[in-house]
Amino acid sequence: MEFANQKHKGNRIVDLTRDNWMLTQDGFDIRTAQAFEGLFTVGSGYLHTRASLEEHFADCPQDSRELRRPANVTAEKFVPVPGRWGTFVPGVFGHHPLLLQEMINLPWFLELVPVVDGERLDLTTSAVAGFRRTLNMKTATLGRELAWQTKSGRTLRVFHERFISGSVTNLSVQRMRIECDQALELTVLGGIDANITTNGFEHFNDIVLAQTAAGVSCRVLTDGRDTIHMEARLAADGASWTYGVAERHGWRQAVVTVRPGEPLMVEKRTVVTTSRDLAPTTPAAVLDRHAGASWDDLHRQHCAHWAAEWDHADIRIEGDDESQIILRSSIYHLLRCHVPGDGRVAICAKGYAGDAYKGHFFWDTEAYLLPFFLYTAPEKARTFIDFRIGTLEEARKIAAGYGYRGARFPWEADAEGRECCCDFQYRDHEIHVTGAVAYGVSHYFSAVGGLDQVSEEAARLAVETARYWMDRIDYRKGEAFPSILGVMGPDEYAPITHNNAYTNRMAAFNLSFAARIGKRGGATDEECAAFAKTAAALPIHRSKRNPNLVLQCEGFEELAEPRFDEFWADRKGCYAARVSQERLYRSKNLKQADVVLLMALFPDEFTDAEVKTAWETYLPVTTHDSSLSAAIHAIVALRLGLFEEAWSFFRKSASIDLDTDHGGAAQGIHIAGAAGNWQVLVLGFAGMRTAAQSEVLRFNPKLPAHWTKLAFPIVWKGTPVGVEMEPGKTKVTNRGSQALDISVAGRTARVAPGESREW
Amino acid sequence: MEFANQKHKGNRIVDLTRDNWMLTQDGFDIRTAQAFEGLFTVGSGYLHTRASLEEHFADCPQDSRELRRPANVTAEKFVPVPGRWGTFVPGVFGHHPLLLQEMINLPWFLELVPVVDGERLDLTTSAVAGFRRTLNMKTATLGRELAWQTKSGRTLRVFHERFISGSVTNLSVQRMRIECDQALELTVLGGIDANITTNGFEHFNDIVLAQTAAGVSCRVLTDGRDTIHMEARLAADGASWTYGVAERHGWRQAVVTVRPGEPLMVEKRTVVTTSRDLAPTTPAAVLDRHAGASWDDLHRQHCAHWAAEWDHADIRIEGDDESQIILRSSIYHLLRCHVPGDGRVAICAKGYAGDAYKGHFFWDTEAYLLPFFLYTAPEKARTFIDFRIGTLEEARKIAAGYGYRGARFPWEADAEGRECCCDFQYRDHEIHVTGAVAYGVSHYFSAVGGLDQVSEEAARLAVETARYWMDRIDYRKGEAFPSILGVMGPDEYAPITHNNAYTNRMAAFNLSFAARIGKRGGATDEECAAFAKTAAALPIHRSKRNPNLVLQCEGFEELAEPRFDEFWADRKGCYAARVSQERLYRSKNLKQADVVLLMALFPDEFTDAEVKTAWETYLPVTTHDSSLSAAIHAIVALRLGLFEEAWSFFRKSASIDLDTDHGGAAQGIHIAGAAGNWQVLVLGFAGMRTAAQSEVLRFNPKLPAHWTKLAFPIVWKGTPVGVEMEPGKTKVTNRGSQALDISVAGRTARVAPGESREW
Repeated sequence: MEFANQKHKGNRIVDLTRDNWMLTQDGFDIRTAQAFEGLFTVGSGYLHTRASLEEHFADCPQDSRELRRPANVTAEKFVPVPGRWGTFVPGVFGHHPLLLQEMINLPWFLELVPVVDGERLDLTTSAVAGFRRTLNMKTATLGRELAWQTKSGRTLRVFHERFISGSVTNLSVQRMRIECDQALELTVLGGIDANITTNGFEHFNDIVLAQTAAGVSCRVLTDGRDTIHMEARLAADGASWTYGVAERHGWRQAVVTVRPGEPLMVEKRTVVTTSRDLAPTTPAAVLDRHAGASWDDLHRQHCAHWAAEWDHADIRIEGDDESQIILRSSIYHLLRCHVPGDGRVAICAKGYAGDAYKGHFFWDTEAYLLPFFLYTAPEKARTFIDFRIGTLEEARKIAAGYGYRGARFPWEADAEGRECCCDFQYRDHEIHVTGAVAYGVSHYFSAVGGLDQVSEEAARLAVETARYWMDRIDYRKGEAFPSILGVMGPDEYAPITHNNAYTNRMAAFNLSFAARIGKRGGATDEECAAFAKTAAALPIHRSKRNPNLVLQCEGFEELAEPRFDEFWADRKGCYAARVSQERLYRSKNLKQADVVLLMALFPDEFTDAEVKTAWETYLPVTTHDSSLSAAIHAIVALRLGLFEEAWSFFRKSASIDLDTDHGGAAQGIHIAGAAGNWQVLVLGFAGMRTAAQSEVLRFNPKLPAHWTKLAFPIVWKGTPVGVEMEPGKTKVTNRGSQALDISVAGRTARVAPGESREW
Repeated sequence: MEFANQKHKGNRIVDLTRDNWMLTQDGFDIRTAQAFEGLFTVGSGYLHTRASLEEHFADCPQDSRELRRPANVTAEKFVPVPGRWGTFVPGVFGHHPLLLQEMINLPWFLELVPVVDGERLDLTTSAVAGFRRTLNMKTATLGRELAWQTKSGRTLRVFHERFISGSVTNLSVQRMRIECDQALELTVLGGIDANITTNGFEHFNDIVLAQTAAGVSCRVLTDGRDTIHMEARLAADGASWTYGVAERHGWRQAVVTVRPGEPLMVEKRTVVTTSRDLAPTTPAAVLDRHAGASWDDLHRQHCAHWAAEWDHADIRIEGDDESQIILRSSIYHLLRCHVPGDGRVAICAKGYAGDAYKGHFFWDTEAYLLPFFLYTAPEKARTFIDFRIGTLEEARKIAAGYGYRGARFPWEADAEGRECCCDFQYRDHEIHVTGAVAYGVSHYFSAVGGLDQVSEEAARLAVETARYWMDRIDYRKGEAFPSILGVMGPDEYAPITHNNAYTNRMAAFNLSFAARIGKRGGATDEECAAFAKTAAALPIHRSKRNPNLVLQCEGFEELAEPRFDEFWADRKGCYAARVSQERLYRSKNLKQADVVLLMALFPDEFTDAEVKTAWETYLPVTTHDSSLSAAIHAIVALRLGLFEEAWSFFRKSASIDLDTDHGGAAQGIHIAGAAGNWQVLVLGFAGMRTAAQSEVLRFNPKLPAHWTKLAFPIVWKGTPVGVEMEPGKTKVTNRGSQALDISVAGRTARVAPGESREW
């Protein structure tokens, strides 16, 4: 064993020598520290913590004050620090004069530090060897081990484990074991540190730190008028804990003796409650309630919870352990992010693993995240629908603020559904989000049973959003058809364009949906008829030069050619980082391809020739600067039989968060991308049609050649279904109580409850 | 005389009972206080002060801290306070994290306050009658009188006068006379108050207040690294002055006795120097140098300066005193704003009469301001050209920042020529500013002699800007001609459009200019040929439906119709305040008409039919939300023989700053509008062609019917010319030393030096 500040030994995150449930960080490198903090985030839905090191770094303040001007998100620069704490409770937002509402980064409670002979363990200054961290995704447990040679010449082995309980969702459980080969005296400290700002901004109006009978408590009043209450308790055999407080940091510490063969074990349990909680309680009550439970007891319950979670969501890949692990990291974070039973929030763009994107909710919710939940645990998907229904009134206010009737959902929402986007080009023009919301609601009801089950509230959402579109359209002089002018599609490099194909189709979908179920939502027959008529008349333009080419928008062909070879010859990083936004905005350089996405969502509305033409037209000018792009391209490539391209897009999409050498999850998890990965597997390789696309459950398997098996569970209109695909063979098991028509590669059969059937 | 808090008695700013050099504020109304502060700004070019009341208001702090998010300027909201101090030295900029660089509002030195029986005069709380302020524009002197009945029952008359010396440009001279009808004891105080922020932001890194032998000094170190030094001295017969200081406010005060028939006269002189001064000195040195001069001495010199200024700039209108006064208010502010001999600054958008627009320099400089100076005092116009030449290196950096060769001038410049615009749609896309700069340089040399006199530096500017355009153009697929894509023209409601007619023409002008004089500026013959070829090929699109219609930009006809009748039926205020920016950006609602401006600048390039078609097409959809719009429309209306419309546009333009009931000059003087008013008179009613438009001095008079005379001086290629127009008769006098060909209404004659000639 070599004692030195060990350097990163290259990307061994997917370590195939271990089992295929593990992500590994082998050796510590300050340059990738933040990427692993994000990637190894643990959480329970209710509470999330980035994988900061328990001892933190000596020179790494978290309370910097800066005014980051809102700017083009793609090219955003962040203040460079070695590590960023992250403690998030979804829904806890505060006001910021520039960023409007942002998710607050709460006080940090993971602190657990050994000090030997006056030396505090610190990976930037201490002599450390054998550093390894593993995230066990099966049990959602983070482990760490290292050997530490102190400056005073002592050698210790330090082990950490932690999890946020899946069953007691506001409880964080940590333990640290220290072994030594000669007796030594050691100081251990741990507490709660409120020296933290969010994106450089102070959100705490009041902070009260106090000692409790067995620990430290911290009560914070946020500028969003929420009260956050935390209590942390430390325990170690024979330790006598003193209390310390310095400004915004309160801690307990103890001096203990460690002997060879008698390792020190310190446990820290922290509970977080907020004034937003659906079931109000106090940290002390929760801690007391579980005081009799051992680490093992708590961990056993936690593992049981996660076993059940995986049971309904895991995708098994045989013949490709690497893809298996990568995909599990996507599913792990998706499972982690969902807030059980709380329809007041959705999942933020960075999966509660960073504050950089302000914790806002985007169209990703419906367009990317929803299907995973809808087909693995429909009751979870319901909270997304509830979130939009719950913020419908705010959406009405937003529409009114623009001078429109009806409801218009915000581009970036906080938990109240307020518009939190600072940049007008997205906020004002990316109105397709409203279509995505309606599509999501419709998709939800289609998937759980059918549109006749649409609730009155959901129908009202459909009607109000349809009313917005009716007011938002223009009939241009000399034209008999409606137009939607001045929009930005999902391709954010085309800022203000007319009759964007994707936006028009989503608006038409929204209007058709409202026409169909609008009476339940308060629309008159005449209104529903008008919805239907407008939906049918909204144009999807084709090129005059090539009728097979669906145009992204009017004037697309009149844009300048992109200059990739000149400015982006290496194709590394984002194109947007190489050229000015001004150049982007006048050129055919797509951030992601609107038309390809459109064809992925509505596959039966476009001929193969049209899809092929779109692919050949847009792909050469698509930068994939958006993490949302690759997965959709993988799915459409499979439709076109472009297996190599599909595989390449899948791997590109799947590796985003794991690519720690290029940032990876440093600013948080690309959670929509994670959901996109699931889509590639289920909608792409397994070729499933969603309930928004097909009445009948249909598969059209196109497995990668080296995969020997692909197996996953889904729920189709209330019926759990097991799917197992092998080369040339598909077996489907009806695990429900109703017979189900299932089609595989075009051949339909009825599968009885309990029956398995092979194709 | 009635003692009460007198209300505003309506708009009597133009009081025809007085002489036609006076602007009057009759009665005080808190609602119009800021409008008069702006309108009555006095200054010397070097130093400017808003017309704050010397005693200020009790509850009106000037040091609020706020973070105003940069937003659509037209709809910008300001923090409401009764009054806003303004002390400006052009060129003194500081850094702001959001507003980038902004002109700093310097410490306030006008304070001069009477206190009687503990009551401080305050127009919001004291019983005051007979309030009247007059700005004598001939002498650039602000006077005020009022009667004050104190709460203790005493009656005083208070008179103020002040000016900033035109001859000693860093010297402010104030005096206050107090008369009473019974003896009373009075406290007088006055000092320098540094309790001021700029747009809510603190720019002073260090403030040192001190007493001097005879007054108070204040030295401020700004965050722009400038040192500002002020000294104020107070004098009154027999007064014994004590010194007081409280935080950022230092003052002198004295207790004096006033007796009937023996009025108190207090004089305050303040000198401001900065580390930017071209001729460094100290306030004390300047004050000492003039210590022997009486008020009358100083005022006499000041008046002589202004008499000379007016002599070369005044426009006399007979038969319409109202227009006479209004126009003089425009010329007064233009004369005030020019910084003598300092090519490091231009004139900021608000004429150094407010900090709201951040003191930035826009394209207004060349497009609106330049002609007034160029034809009344060409040596003054030279400083604008020097300003652009001096910031050429910065413009090269800006171009490089966008990835272009050459030089691109900033949309909003500070004194260093840095880009200070926070809003990308203007900053990135309103690139016509670079064309305006080149046009201005060309215009300057045409007007002072001819393009063969273009200096090497100016030629280099022409070449560098031309290189920018060459790199900025695109050749679209399948098109042989160059295009300028993704621009915002002067019509800021059409954000990102292609081949904007105005922008293309200005770019072509720039390229042609560079082609012609480029060799002197370092261009090769081949480069010049390429400039010329590109200039000739840049398109000005006509409508396919109507070949006489010059299109503002591609796709203009595909925009939505404006909804004036629905949202703006009363046509009051800005249309932009009634609808969302999003609606503006997709509709045919012009802030100002690009094509009309184009035709005003290049009148001979468009047929009458084209001008008429443009007028009839664009006028109905033009909001004139820009203060720059009306003057140009007046000029073009005169070309079309639309006299009523021209008169109406002239009055609309001319009244902007005087309309105190609707804000007027509250945020500062619309200085480009003021220059536009001069243009209406000279280029419109007198029908002069500029040297950019005509080799020969040409007039085509179209006087309003009720004007009996219009007379003004101009300088044409170095020759001073007097112009007198009466109905049916034009007399031109050559006051220079060279014969001049002059054309009136198409008839040309040579006028010898000293000769007057009638048409």
